[in-house]
Amino acid sequence: MPKYTKEDFPVDNVRRFLEPGPIVLVSSAYKSETNIMTMGWHMIMEFQPSLIGCYVWTANHSFEMIRKSRQCVINIPTEDIAAKVVKIGNSSGRDIDKFAEFGLIPKPATLVRAPLIDECYANFECRLVDSSLIRKYNLFVFEVVKAHVATSPKYPKTIHYRGDGEFMISGENTRRFRRLFRPERLEN
Amino acid sequence: MPKYTKEDFPVDNVRRFLEPGPIVLVSSAYKSETNIMTMGWHMIMEFQPSLIGCYVWTANHSFEMIRKSRQCVINIPTEDIAAKVVKIGNSSGRDIDKFAEFGLIPKPATLVRAPLIDECYANFECRLVDSSLIRKYNLFVFEVVKAHVATSPKYPKTIHYRGDGEFMISGENTRRFRRLFRPERLEN
Repeated sequence: MPKYTKEDFPVDNVRRFLEPGPIVLVSSAYKSETNIMTMGWHMIMEFQPSLIGCYVWTANHSFEMIRKSRQCVINIPTEDIAAKVVKIGNSSGRDIDKFAEFGLIPKPATLVRAPLIDECYANFECRLVDSSLIRKYNLFVFEVVKAHVATSPKYPKTIHYRGDGEFMISGENTRRFRRLFRPERLEN
Repeated sequence: MPKYTKEDFPVDNVRRFLEPGPIVLVSSAYKSETNIMTMGWHMIMEFQPSLIGCYVWTANHSFEMIRKSRQCVINIPTEDIAAKVVKIGNSSGRDIDKFAEFGLIPKPATLVRAPLIDECYANFECRLVDSSLIRKYNLFVFEVVKAHVATSPKYPKTIHYRGDGEFMISGENTRRFRRLFRPERLEN
């Protein structure tokens, strides 16, 4: 099991870990219950405030917990716990306590009641800032209000879902195209 | 330059290539002009209809072209043209014809006027089906109406952006967790 030492990370730069498109674990708390769900449909929507759009199926046990508590934590798991990630996505919080069942440590967050998953590479504490798109699109717009990121390794080996039980594991990281960037230009 | 042979692909399964989170190239056409932009902020929003949410900056030259034509093509580039992808994102259609400048072939699409980028692994013809979130979130909701995907390789080597000029290249593809899936369960 991974043991990460984490530090505070600027919330307006969480795109660094989310934009490459990993599967994430969403932890939630409502009343006396906690839960974890596996999520693949998410996108960065703004740097400042740090907004993330997330699709949560109505049928998910987490749906009402997140909608009612208006909070969650988006956790980034790495390849070493991929089997747990799959099992979390294929079981329901209606039946089991997923932290206990899968041997994951719920660590208290700073600004939300939803717990951090200690074994994940990064944890982003989120508040629901727009619930108006939930009914039409199952789209939750969250603001990341606090971010915790492992001090090492620099690049986590993340898990990316292709559907139908197939995954892509993140590969090489490169700065070799950096000289081609013109930071002043964004109007492509 | 890659030379892909492509075939029709079910539009309700484009998640296979988009959910892992690659950088995409968005091609557009409006009046006598075409353009290409590099885009990293997108997400799957539904299987049927096949919906994709995309964030397009107001400052992008493509913004008005897509908004007014209500169409685009989402193209998936691979590692071999990464340098072109960066240059496309760091230049503006206001100044240059990007197809000509970067030596890319605009191939006629079937259901939209925006051209397919022939050198990309996959091309998804899209219609804008919801423009109501553009003002608040720069969020365009597209429906994929036709999909063209290369017959080989099975897994494209895609480019994933971390910001600050750094990329992740897609790595190993695996079905080794497949036996853990319980397709009947989606209510995590």
